[in-house]
Amino acid sequence: MEKEREALQAWKERVAQELDRVVAFWTAHSHDREHGGFLTCLGRDGRVYDDLKYVWLQGRQVWMYCHLYSKFERFRRSELLDAAKAGGEFLLRCARVAPPEQKCAFALTRDGRPVKVQRTIFSECFYALAMDALWRVTGDARYQREATEMMDQVVRWVREDPSGLGRPPLSGTLAAEPMAVPMMLLSLVAQLGDHDEALAGRYAELGDWCAQRILRHVQRDGHAVLENVSEDGRELPGCLGRHQNPGHALEAGWFLLGYASRKGDPALRAHVIEKFLLLPFHSGWDPEHGGLFYFQDVDGLCPTQLEWDMKLWWPHSEAMIAFLMGYRDSGDPALLRLFEQVAEYTFCQFRDPDHGEWFGYLNREGKVALTIKGGPFKGCFHVPRCLAMCEEILGALLSRLARDPGAPRAPPAAPTPRGAE
Amino acid sequence: MEKEREALQAWKERVAQELDRVVAFWTAHSHDREHGGFLTCLGRDGRVYDDLKYVWLQGRQVWMYCHLYSKFERFRRSELLDAAKAGGEFLLRCARVAPPEQKCAFALTRDGRPVKVQRTIFSECFYALAMDALWRVTGDARYQREATEMMDQVVRWVREDPSGLGRPPLSGTLAAEPMAVPMMLLSLVAQLGDHDEALAGRYAELGDWCAQRILRHVQRDGHAVLENVSEDGRELPGCLGRHQNPGHALEAGWFLLGYASRKGDPALRAHVIEKFLLLPFHSGWDPEHGGLFYFQDVDGLCPTQLEWDMKLWWPHSEAMIAFLMGYRDSGDPALLRLFEQVAEYTFCQFRDPDHGEWFGYLNREGKVALTIKGGPFKGCFHVPRCLAMCEEILGALLSRLARDPGAPRAPPAAPTPRGAE
Repeated sequence: MEKEREALQAWKERVAQELDRVVAFWTAHSHDREHGGFLTCLGRDGRVYDDLKYVWLQGRQVWMYCHLYSKFERFRRSELLDAAKAGGEFLLRCARVAPPEQKCAFALTRDGRPVKVQRTIFSECFYALAMDALWRVTGDARYQREATEMMDQVVRWVREDPSGLGRPPLSGTLAAEPMAVPMMLLSLVAQLGDHDEALAGRYAELGDWCAQRILRHVQRDGHAVLENVSEDGRELPGCLGRHQNPGHALEAGWFLLGYASRKGDPALRAHVIEKFLLLPFHSGWDPEHGGLFYFQDVDGLCPTQLEWDMKLWWPHSEAMIAFLMGYRDSGDPALLRLFEQVAEYTFCQFRDPDHGEWFGYLNREGKVALTIKGGPFKGCFHVPRCLAMCEEILGALLSRLARDPGAPRAPPAAPTPRGAE
Repeated sequence: MEKEREALQAWKERVAQELDRVVAFWTAHSHDREHGGFLTCLGRDGRVYDDLKYVWLQGRQVWMYCHLYSKFERFRRSELLDAAKAGGEFLLRCARVAPPEQKCAFALTRDGRPVKVQRTIFSECFYALAMDALWRVTGDARYQREATEMMDQVVRWVREDPSGLGRPPLSGTLAAEPMAVPMMLLSLVAQLGDHDEALAGRYAELGDWCAQRILRHVQRDGHAVLENVSEDGRELPGCLGRHQNPGHALEAGWFLLGYASRKGDPALRAHVIEKFLLLPFHSGWDPEHGGLFYFQDVDGLCPTQLEWDMKLWWPHSEAMIAFLMGYRDSGDPALLRLFEQVAEYTFCQFRDPDHGEWFGYLNREGKVALTIKGGPFKGCFHVPRCLAMCEEILGALLSRLARDPGAPRAPPAAPTPRGAE
């Protein structure tokens, strides 16, 4: 037990130090003091190489700063709060393409004019995530109203009528559900309902719906998680149907662990650990060079995506969260060992010893393929979210061990179900 | 001179044999005998791994088969002509999303229902290319009418009103010209006007316009070809402006060599060789592992595309054409040496000794990263076009040498300008 305590303590210190370095990188280089919001196209040393602003990354950084500000004493700094508010105001002012319509841009110029619009829900979801987080740290009800109004619009697009997204209906397009959609909504349900009985109740049915939809992505008699299934939960034909993304399945895994924990459902927890943590890890981990493949084909065929065998930062940060959370919730020491395996690889390969923040893109062998620290799809989110959540979980595990030295071996008591669940 | 003749003869044989193997691969595996058109998602050994049909690749394969049928005695086979006609009829029947509107789909189901539409001109351009080629081998005027009607629509989208393409105007979007647009149109001008005085005259001004637009992509005081420039021919800010694609510049090079040859303009030819052949080759060739990088940033920054350092088949096939054509037109033996350097790398790295057709995607070190032979962006086009054109050029060079042993050292006489040029 003492050896385990020491291991957890050592990881907590390593993770906390790394979080400090990562946050320092983003606060030093990404704040746009002229227009608000964040510059995320940053080179290895933080230099700005492009000033387009990506709405996903604006919303995510606002959320991240609010989370750090509210959960960590050492990050309760006006610098973070002010930057989060300036980011939120930038989104309020510029994210919508044609206000009062709710559709948001994907990319904006530095001063906030729309450059590109995606015909999906994700810009809007990260907008809602940011607004809810801002409401929690500022108490300004305007932010909460923005969050729930956007959330309700997104839910209408997903469950009632997608026509406002701008995708023309085509007779040959398969009615496919990407797992990202219920995952995104489930994470919003968790965010908006956190410590808020009224909203938790309001979105309880939606949360159940999301969890059920994600679970339907377990296919092939329970032997594989597929990224896309039909709207009635069956495997789709062709590459689209066979497509797998192990890191994404692991991320869905920890979303579902949170859901199972809120529901107090140990059977679901065990199912999630088996299907969304262990399966994708064992199929997705590269036996030759280590690390998680980015994409796979469930039949073992060659994927058509050029980057399929690259090692990306975010599947690894999601895997760290998933295994540590799985260990916390189940007490199974095999999951702690998997956390350590992934975390060792990740710290060794992605961490930049000379500058803050991690590299994002390695080739199969683990060599840095792109030296950028931020770009159109990488901002201040996956790395600090992983480090912050791991620090919090490790802290909770250590407290539990201090209270009851036998605790991590046994599953914790089921928390009380909440809301209308 | 005899050594040179031997080298040309050896390459001609190597190229011709390879062309036979490549054509055999596509005729064996890609023909859809039920619906017409071509299955292009083919694994290493030709097995179909997906049955979506990509309109670019349908049009390109029709063109390729017609070219082979009409230019090579050994390919004047009904198998090729019938497959080309079945592909053309499939396009006529299914490519348009909402006939009689001219907008074409990007991807179709195997039986021809639209799956995806791109808001660009390229599906339509390859449709026109296919129809013109079919007209030439069949004499059926319906195909020529289809070709010119589509061509005229594309030209209106590019030069008058792009609103029919479906891109919403956004206030932050830079009015950028991708080099692909005038390149594509210039290749259509060459195709439609080939041995057709009336159409050559009709599109002569358009051809001049395309050439001038492509030439404006030479930036940085003549030291770099940039993929995107502003509509008035200046460098654009950010990653978009700094983006380079060496293989694409080389392809533009041989398009422009053809234009310079049609115009009888040796000064333009020399400019094109310097700016579109030598510059991109010297900046884009990997000094460490050989091969052309896929993307570069003109300031030497890290590109944001994950595949930037991969070696793709088509930049290499375009470079082979460009250097051999440059050698034919200028007589400069340095260009023959560059052809040989690129061709040796290409035959060594991309060719599959066990099955026909080349691999498409290598990692930076030259290892096969994707084993597929065809996919959403790779069909029966770049490899056989390269081999067929190289065989034709090598044949012409050998004939010239036989007539006049000193010929390849001196630039050939300027051909007579044609049409209204």
